[in-house]
Amino acid sequence: MSAPVTIAIDAMGGDAAPGIVVDGVRLAHERLPHVHFLLFGDAVQVEALLDRQPHLKAVCTVRHTDEAVANEDKPSQVLRNGRRSSMWLAVDAVHKGEAAGVVSAGNTGALMAVSKFVLRTLPGIDRPAIAGLFPTVRGETVMLDLGANVDCDANNLFQFAVMGEVFARAVLGLENPTIGILNVGAEELKGNEAVKSAATRIRESGLPIRFHGFVEGNDICEGTVDVVVTDGFTGNIALKTAEGTVRLYSALLREGFKNSLLAKVGYLFARHALTKVKVRIDPRRYNGAMFLGLNGIAVKSHGGTDAFGFANAIGVAVDLVSHGYNDRIRKEFARLNPAEPSSSQIVAGSR
Amino acid sequence: MSAPVTIAIDAMGGDAAPGIVVDGVRLAHERLPHVHFLLFGDAVQVEALLDRQPHLKAVCTVRHTDEAVANEDKPSQVLRNGRRSSMWLAVDAVHKGEAAGVVSAGNTGALMAVSKFVLRTLPGIDRPAIAGLFPTVRGETVMLDLGANVDCDANNLFQFAVMGEVFARAVLGLENPTIGILNVGAEELKGNEAVKSAATRIRESGLPIRFHGFVEGNDICEGTVDVVVTDGFTGNIALKTAEGTVRLYSALLREGFKNSLLAKVGYLFARHALTKVKVRIDPRRYNGAMFLGLNGIAVKSHGGTDAFGFANAIGVAVDLVSHGYNDRIRKEFARLNPAEPSSSQIVAGSR
Repeated sequence: MSAPVTIAIDAMGGDAAPGIVVDGVRLAHERLPHVHFLLFGDAVQVEALLDRQPHLKAVCTVRHTDEAVANEDKPSQVLRNGRRSSMWLAVDAVHKGEAAGVVSAGNTGALMAVSKFVLRTLPGIDRPAIAGLFPTVRGETVMLDLGANVDCDANNLFQFAVMGEVFARAVLGLENPTIGILNVGAEELKGNEAVKSAATRIRESGLPIRFHGFVEGNDICEGTVDVVVTDGFTGNIALKTAEGTVRLYSALLREGFKNSLLAKVGYLFARHALTKVKVRIDPRRYNGAMFLGLNGIAVKSHGGTDAFGFANAIGVAVDLVSHGYNDRIRKEFARLNPAEPSSSQIVAGSR
Repeated sequence: MSAPVTIAIDAMGGDAAPGIVVDGVRLAHERLPHVHFLLFGDAVQVEALLDRQPHLKAVCTVRHTDEAVANEDKPSQVLRNGRRSSMWLAVDAVHKGEAAGVVSAGNTGALMAVSKFVLRTLPGIDRPAIAGLFPTVRGETVMLDLGANVDCDANNLFQFAVMGEVFARAVLGLENPTIGILNVGAEELKGNEAVKSAATRIRESGLPIRFHGFVEGNDICEGTVDVVVTDGFTGNIALKTAEGTVRLYSALLREGFKNSLLAKVGYLFARHALTKVKVRIDPRRYNGAMFLGLNGIAVKSHGGTDAFGFANAIGVAVDLVSHGYNDRIRKEFARLNPAEPSSSQIVAGSR
């Protein structure tokens, strides 16, 4: 049996909140009966949704607030005036230790700003990163940063590599994950200064990281490495380009199957197999962008997701909590940044 | 009838040269009977391939050289020692006016370096860009830069926007194409300094450009705009991410159709429709990266392409030539950078 875990939920975040959010909590509850939920939002609306489901209500606590962050609110506005919003209160519940993690489908920029402000970064980490999972030919690859930092230097990329490596070991359960830095070519001479210096920094760190070197865009879905490291500008564009390509391919297939009687018949026979492919590549399965490097677990669900997607985002938060991700990150960075490394420590390192 | 055009061919460039190259020239000849080819490479090998095809031989001239650029050659080496290589001689044929354009499937970095050195950029253009076509839900979108420049400032992005706009009008035949700058969000406040300043520069240029503003990764395949402008680092990664995603989806489909008897039967019925989808999304169809902004037409074919792909790259070069792309670019930049713009010129502009 799993130990009880409490997850704070921003019940008012997302395009169809709080309906989709409560439905997502219900789906998550079916899969994760040991999780308790602390929901922040309009108590009248949320209670009305819960009243229909006594089993669910038993694992939920509702905290009322009549303020919510809107999609168009600027992060700076939310930092100044948003302390009573459902998003802020949910993040603050993690800070206070009332919840082990928070999930919100609200405004990404605001959630990142509030999470950074309230939770702070872990010791040794300058900037948090947004990480997400990609389907690959071999299984899954984690990529970071997906948009928290549009400008990254070599040091940021190096820290992302360490965070990603620990994630792959702690949460994906890989024994010796491989790391690659996203670049325009696999050759050492290619790329901008940041990726070249980051590669050198990883190689010279003495950390027991299995560094593959540079990877290219096609390597993400080919699963060439377990962890793809990139800046938030490139990562966000790669993520959305991949999503757009899946949608294009699906649209062309749909059109193709409608185009002739033969194709329609073929679709009937192959429907089950096609559904399996669709499920495998379904962006909702990969919903739940993780904010890594903060003093607390925060997961962002896609704003336009449905209950299935929101439940997956909750699953991601519970995964991070139950694998003790943040404790392992703390240990890794303590090892990396001892107050003043003595030569004996370096010799004792795991080169 | 189309006017005769001569295209210079680097017969030794690409993974399976010169066999694939000559096969590609044959396919191109079937579609474009008015084109003459000037092939540079090992005359014995190339003549042997042509001897089997007298119709083709009639439109080909072979120039012998026993030097070729290797895939692993550094651009700087090629600039120093590569003047007798088939690639250099083919590019030089354009410079000398013996050919209207050049196609090579060789080393991309070397081809860009040689093309820049031999052909020079057009007046008003600081750096050439690599442009390519993407399939979209609505048709096709042109994107640039796909990898010529890993670091771009606002001015480079602005020039790419103008080059892309002229391409969409001159070659794609669009009357009033829309332009977008690739960014991490559509809001004006998002992104790095380069994209924000480039957006301002386009808006304030007074050019009759239909500027849509920022677009995101998913907008590429959705065809939100006709021209997507980005730096070479991001563009290269977006291109390869899209290619990798198509390959993943295709692999999952193949696997799905093999998985059960029902699915196999379904495949037989739907095969024709599926082939059409595959053709539509086939990377070989989009083979032929255009080097825009040079004093001559240069097209890079994928090194691993087959004859079909190489023929498409030739088609792209012929398109650029026959639509007078470079003359239109020259005019656009002459209008943009008059020696000293007088106020009357500004008033007479097409605001």
